[in-house]
Amino acid sequence: MPESSPSTPKLYLEDLAPGDRFTSGEHALDAAQIIDFATRFDPQPFHLDPEAAQRTFFQGLAASGWHTAAITMKLLVESGMPLADGVIGSGGELSWPKPTRPGDVLHVESEVVEVVPSRSRPERGMVLMRCETLNQRGEVLQRFSPKLVVSKRPA
Amino acid sequence: MPESSPSTPKLYLEDLAPGDRFTSGEHALDAAQIIDFATRFDPQPFHLDPEAAQRTFFQGLAASGWHTAAITMKLLVESGMPLADGVIGSGGELSWPKPTRPGDVLHVESEVVEVVPSRSRPERGMVLMRCETLNQRGEVLQRFSPKLVVSKRPA
Repeated sequence: MPESSPSTPKLYLEDLAPGDRFTSGEHALDAAQIIDFATRFDPQPFHLDPEAAQRTFFQGLAASGWHTAAITMKLLVESGMPLADGVIGSGGELSWPKPTRPGDVLHVESEVVEVVPSRSRPERGMVLMRCETLNQRGEVLQRFSPKLVVSKRPA
Repeated sequence: MPESSPSTPKLYLEDLAPGDRFTSGEHALDAAQIIDFATRFDPQPFHLDPEAAQRTFFQGLAASGWHTAAITMKLLVESGMPLADGVIGSGGELSWPKPTRPGDVLHVESEVVEVVPSRSRPERGMVLMRCETLNQRGEVLQRFSPKLVVSKRPA
């Protein structure tokens, strides 16, 4: 699966079919990024302090799940899903099977599950995707099954 | 529903029952915060540029859904859910029924749906919650149904 790039054709609803796959570029995470995000949005000891984190559920510093989710979005937008009108989601089922750790290098592998043209809005449709965020050892850190709003090609 | 505060008792699994409700403090969002988050994690025109956003699906600047989710987590951690060992989620169903806009003042209303002691780990259990993020007009901006890992009271 080649990584998307600025020369990747921009896709519309008609261009997508179940089984289509996309692979993003990479994001290298370190403790400073984990602590910075957690300070703003998830200030708990296991996301803020490597020492204190040892004595918690996570047994060491771990990224906020919302940080993993935000990096996943960055990767999808920049290189993981070349949709003509952007990556617009209405939600989906989200899970974090393993903690994201300092030193992890993340990328996202996505697959089209279902393409549903809208009955009421002929200019667009809904695409159900399955997006896995993995680290450099192939461990799945996040699973997300978003419902995306995707435009049809303009007439 | 009183807002949680530093004097709020810290809760363990035994303290939670279906129907229990919590209300967080508030977070006031502005365009600068929306653009800052989007620049880092969701760099798309409808999250970055009020002018360009007018001509998109969102018809004006909107916060990244992941920004709404991250603020929700901040509110839960700081004032929305006084769990003794912290707010630790393994995932859940997430949806954004309406865009979050500059000027919105967010708070979170949460309800315990189910409490399930672990069979394999006697020291903890799973709590299914329903968390709604609302703005100052009572509009629901996010629904999230997290599964939380919650400790029992130490012996």
